[in-house]
Amino acid sequence: MAGSSFGNIIRVTTWGESHGAAVGCVIDGFPAGMEICEEDIQKYLDLRKPGQSSISTPRKEDDKVKILSGVFEGKTTGTPISLMVENTSQHSADYNDIAQYYRPGHADYSFDSKYGFRDYRGGGRSSGRETIGRVAAGALCLKFLKQMGIEVMAYTRSIGKVYINEEEADLSLTYNTITRMPDLEADKKATELIDECKKNLDSVGGSIGVKITGVPAGIGDPVFNKLDALLADAVMGIGAVKAVEIGDGIKVSESYGSTNNDAFEINNKVVSKKSNHSGGILGGMSDGSDIILRAYFKPTPSIARTQQTFNKSGENIDINIKGRHDPVIMPRAVIVVQSMAAITLLDAMLVNMPAKAENVLKMYTK
Amino acid sequence: MAGSSFGNIIRVTTWGESHGAAVGCVIDGFPAGMEICEEDIQKYLDLRKPGQSSISTPRKEDDKVKILSGVFEGKTTGTPISLMVENTSQHSADYNDIAQYYRPGHADYSFDSKYGFRDYRGGGRSSGRETIGRVAAGALCLKFLKQMGIEVMAYTRSIGKVYINEEEADLSLTYNTITRMPDLEADKKATELIDECKKNLDSVGGSIGVKITGVPAGIGDPVFNKLDALLADAVMGIGAVKAVEIGDGIKVSESYGSTNNDAFEINNKVVSKKSNHSGGILGGMSDGSDIILRAYFKPTPSIARTQQTFNKSGENIDINIKGRHDPVIMPRAVIVVQSMAAITLLDAMLVNMPAKAENVLKMYTK
Amino acid sequence: MAGSSFGNIIRVTTWGESHGAAVGCVIDGFPAGMEICEEDIQKYLDLRKPGQSSISTPRKEDDKVKILSGVFEGKTTGTPISLMVENTSQHSADYNDIAQYYRPGHADYSFDSKYGFRDYRGGGRSSGRETIGRVAAGALCLKFLKQMGIEVMAYTRSIGKVYINEEEADLSLTYNTITRMPDLEADKKATELIDECKKNLDSVGGSIGVKITGVPAGIGDPVFNKLDALLADAVMGIGAVKAVEIGDGIKVSESYGSTNNDAFEINNKVVSKKSNHSGGILGGMSDGSDIILRAYFKPTPSIARTQQTFNKSGENIDINIKGRHDPVIMPRAVIVVQSMAAITLLDAMLVNMPAKAENVLKMYTK
Amino acid sequence: MAGSSFGNIIRVTTWGESHGAAVGCVIDGFPAGMEICEEDIQKYLDLRKPGQSSISTPRKEDDKVKILSGVFEGKTTGTPISLMVENTSQHSADYNDIAQYYRPGHADYSFDSKYGFRDYRGGGRSSGRETIGRVAAGALCLKFLKQMGIEVMAYTRSIGKVYINEEEADLSLTYNTITRMPDLEADKKATELIDECKKNLDSVGGSIGVKITGVPAGIGDPVFNKLDALLADAVMGIGAVKAVEIGDGIKVSESYGSTNNDAFEINNKVVSKKSNHSGGILGGMSDGSDIILRAYFKPTPSIARTQQTFNKSGENIDINIKGRHDPVIMPRAVIVVQSMAAITLLDAMLVNMPAKAENVLKMYTK
Repeated sequence: MAGSSFGNIIRVTTWGESHGAAVGCVIDGFPAGMEICEEDIQKYLDLRKPGQSSISTPRKEDDKVKILSGVFEGKTTGTPISLMVENTSQHSADYNDIAQYYRPGHADYSFDSKYGFRDYRGGGRSSGRETIGRVAAGALCLKFLKQMGIEVMAYTRSIGKVYINEEEADLSLTYNTITRMPDLEADKKATELIDECKKNLDSVGGSIGVKITGVPAGIGDPVFNKLDALLADAVMGIGAVKAVEIGDGIKVSESYGSTNNDAFEINNKVVSKKSNHSGGILGGMSDGSDIILRAYFKPTPSIARTQQTFNKSGENIDINIKGRHDPVIMPRAVIVVQSMAAITLLDAMLVNMPAKAENVLKMYTK
Repeated sequence: MAGSSFGNIIRVTTWGESHGAAVGCVIDGFPAGMEICEEDIQKYLDLRKPGQSSISTPRKEDDKVKILSGVFEGKTTGTPISLMVENTSQHSADYNDIAQYYRPGHADYSFDSKYGFRDYRGGGRSSGRETIGRVAAGALCLKFLKQMGIEVMAYTRSIGKVYINEEEADLSLTYNTITRMPDLEADKKATELIDECKKNLDSVGGSIGVKITGVPAGIGDPVFNKLDALLADAVMGIGAVKAVEIGDGIKVSESYGSTNNDAFEINNKVVSKKSNHSGGILGGMSDGSDIILRAYFKPTPSIARTQQTFNKSGENIDINIKGRHDPVIMPRAVIVVQSMAAITLLDAMLVNMPAKAENVLKMYTK
Repeated sequence: MAGSSFGNIIRVTTWGESHGAAVGCVIDGFPAGMEICEEDIQKYLDLRKPGQSSISTPRKEDDKVKILSGVFEGKTTGTPISLMVENTSQHSADYNDIAQYYRPGHADYSFDSKYGFRDYRGGGRSSGRETIGRVAAGALCLKFLKQMGIEVMAYTRSIGKVYINEEEADLSLTYNTITRMPDLEADKKATELIDECKKNLDSVGGSIGVKITGVPAGIGDPVFNKLDALLADAVMGIGAVKAVEIGDGIKVSESYGSTNNDAFEINNKVVSKKSNHSGGILGGMSDGSDIILRAYFKPTPSIARTQQTFNKSGENIDINIKGRHDPVIMPRAVIVVQSMAAITLLDAMLVNMPAKAENVLKMYTK
Repeated sequence: MAGSSFGNIIRVTTWGESHGAAVGCVIDGFPAGMEICEEDIQKYLDLRKPGQSSISTPRKEDDKVKILSGVFEGKTTGTPISLMVENTSQHSADYNDIAQYYRPGHADYSFDSKYGFRDYRGGGRSSGRETIGRVAAGALCLKFLKQMGIEVMAYTRSIGKVYINEEEADLSLTYNTITRMPDLEADKKATELIDECKKNLDSVGGSIGVKITGVPAGIGDPVFNKLDALLADAVMGIGAVKAVEIGDGIKVSESYGSTNNDAFEINNKVVSKKSNHSGGILGGMSDGSDIILRAYFKPTPSIARTQQTFNKSGENIDINIKGRHDPVIMPRAVIVVQSMAAITLLDAMLVNMPAKAENVLKMYTK
């Protein structure tokens, strides 16, 4: 089934394999009349492209985006926005070996099981390059949300056992560090850890935090399209994510109602909460507080060490994967998480517009 | 937007409020020809109904299910299966106070923000009674999966800080204990903890584990409808869940590629993995190993202690919630998690049928 | 696949077979805050119920609707509205023969081919009783549209070769005649034709017209969810409909651009068209003129005459269908067409709300 | 809302405006393992491209398709197939006038009403060039259906008042004539009519027939996703179509049950019908006979004659549209109708795979 689309009112469809001609996306249903240009999108793509620093893959790719449709005289037209990035740094030869066996921790075996075969070059459809389409779509949504006073911020929260000091973090620093940690000390320690990983021909996991400010109360649905469920879907749908938390997350399981319930208060008709254990979502709908989310990433499965697996001939073999891989995925994944959160939230806000009959009547009655 | 449906090929729509005439669901798209009767469904509903033990709400509800359509001569017909449970233990009077204020930890404020008002009786649509529809639908899916050799098992894993010994747990014991912990010792300790909570007019959180055996490799989609993303959506969409883990979950963030990658091996043409850190899903598709999932629940927000909030007149007030509430949600939520996992998996398997052209040709070519 | 739901923002799911316990529908996504009561719905159901006149089936069914959820203190709450009508006039015995063979013009053979067997009692899921759910949902949509100044009118346009004088028809008369023809003379002639059909143990076809006034320009999408395509889907999805026309319909195929194009004009900033060959839709979006639609119905396939078919034993046989059938479907189908048109239009208007970025900003920016 | 996608299991999303950089489509969910190459698609695109004959627009466009993803080593991979055709014959200058006013019969006014403005160059998104994506997707579906013994044939049935002799038509001749009429005599007369239209600065309408052979019984759903409703949606969603008929279509409204019911017969266990008034669909599901469909097209709205309309300054004006337009749309629309029918049917067949529990069990039980 068509499994490459995300969203309802805004529907993002990504396409493309790592070593095909190009990757891209179609963003359908985006409201008409927002100013957008290629540079607006490029600046976000530049945050995920490879080769940005010593701790990322040395592959160099320009990842230049082209707008092919849906924008006219500098504005979105309401029709599908088609965006494309040509693949330019393809070394298919690197992948001849991979065709013959199934890499541990990768989708190779699952892919062959599902479809009977796979485009094995560079991970094919499971390549991180697929996220280019998500970030391009995210760029539009982030811009639109900002116009409504909503900021979606993401940042590296931990790499291995190196955690930032989350309470004191200044999130405006995120994109100033190569780890995307908004904490200079943690950034330094994490960089050392990554260097050690590279020496050990190993990789390491980590986590990414998200904070969304300015969301009005009432976004999301009370039963199946809960805002937290939509966000969990969005974030768990990013390759390598193995856990998602909202608000206090796992900690709530050891908590008591008397401490976990956030007391409400009202001052000058403005409602607020004295704490935010809920992470900004109650009963599946935003409660007006900051939305707090965390995603946990496994270590990059591509490592140069000898590993055990089997091949297409049905033999157990030892393999050594070649290629230019990221020892850690967080620095490039931060903008992907930020993008998916933005698409999810904007879509939920558009879905929410007809929730009250009076809003519908107001729009259509002269 | 229509937010009360779940699934694609099989689409479950739940309806009903806690204190309306009835609650129920429509299961559309279920394959034709499976034997089913009301008893098959009732036995699962009985596992979630209130008043089963000393640690659950003393409310008594029979929750008798009626099949209204979609079953003929004891078999599913392929047309929508409509199931209904009448509400019989409604004490609307209990809720007159609640109409006037916003309970901490509940959806009251979110609901009013979204829709302008709400059915405040017993949580209305956000009531746990909504899950009756999910369990009824789950009953059908669990039965069908079993015919394909697939077992979906769920169990209470922790209540507060009381954890079961997960490695040694015998999951066949789950429904023998009142906590649904498959560990008699932990069950005893947890029961004591809950008794203490009740004395303290408090509630406590916990976690539920899921293990699914027998799933073939290749189920789920590689990009947006990843099997883990679908499961995260399903489980985060259950009220009170604040975190979801697949496989090693959060732990992977501190892990290294060399330990986290699961080595493949093949013996007599049968593929297996030497470990299962992935929790049975690689690249969004099942990898043939057991699927492992955990859901973390917050403490029941309904507690009898004095709490701070505001009322409809815009005043800050102290409240004491009356009513008959569960001090812990796990015992009744286990079957809900089990049901949502079953619906998700069966639907993904049906979606997967046309993945290979050769399977389509085989079905339609004489 | 789940094929019993219709709509996007508003999603109507019907369920139930002719001779099951009940039929009904769930209307999910309906905006919150509209006043509604059972009588509002009942009056439309009464327009489709059997036994209303000499030209309809003599079966008597009360078709009393119950609201089971989604309405609180007389208003829609935004949550799923579950409606049920119990089946009370079931003569299952009438249908024992039918179980053994395949009626010409009916879905019996298609059903068995698809699902392997069928609920053969009274047409099962293909019974006209399924439309009870559509009319109930239509009642809510018609009421809401009226509040926006939009009238959806349907009427019998022809029965056999008896046509109304469409240009002079007063559509307010529609429900005053037993044929639902807004033309007393045609009504008389058609009644005679139907009486003749009954004598001949035969049935006859006809057509239904729809006129929608007050629709703002710009509703519908320019490519795949064209308003005319959505309406065609809605109306062709009613049993027995074999053709759908928008505006001039079939006639346009013999027309010239110079006569078929509708000239625009503007007076005091109000845009209008000098003709309405387009039937109110240009490029898939409403153009501000009346929306004009026609649906063509085949004769009721249930006739008492001897017919040729085959049975489950694989023998060619002659059959004589018993039971109480409508010799013509139009009188009871008018309200079904009207309902489907209303659901389609209201849903398209809700979908359209976020089309302009400025409308989104206006709603969410304080 | 995202309105540029069509289908469920196979989901086709088209994108692109007439005078943007390119047009294209993404085909998601296509089964893996079917052989396909650019030439397979190009041959269908060549059947719709402009400048093929004296009766089509003199614009010359190569419309060369590129496969950007989803095909590996000559086979579909199951992942999204991205196809692109660059726009090369753009004369934007032709359209400067059009920006200022609203062309009768076009979507200009509807577009501005919906979105606030429009890409006015060459019809923008409402351009016939949008159908390039549909034909490209159709090419894949037609190829797959053929492997299952299913032929989808379309042909020009009438142009103005010139009709083919449908009973004697040899549909293999369709693409041999410039009108796409499978009747040499009618082709000659229609060509004369079109020449006359061109002299008169006018355009003319027509109709297209579809015949699908080899469809097994049971495809389509009994209530809302009826096969005829899906086809009506697909075909009414093609620009300029104003009516759709299945089987006998409009004629059934004057028919009697005794003549309209198709008698079944069985011979050597093979079921057939003695007539096919139903057009191969009963109760929304295929009945095993040929599927018969007709689509009626309005005359091309772009004519060079003086027409009345209004402009952006709110003045009533006379206009003379320049540009290179088709005096008749049928010859180029035949392949579009054929494509939409093929996409609809193949998707419905894939959706149908899990209809019987026994088929699901057969696929998943070893």
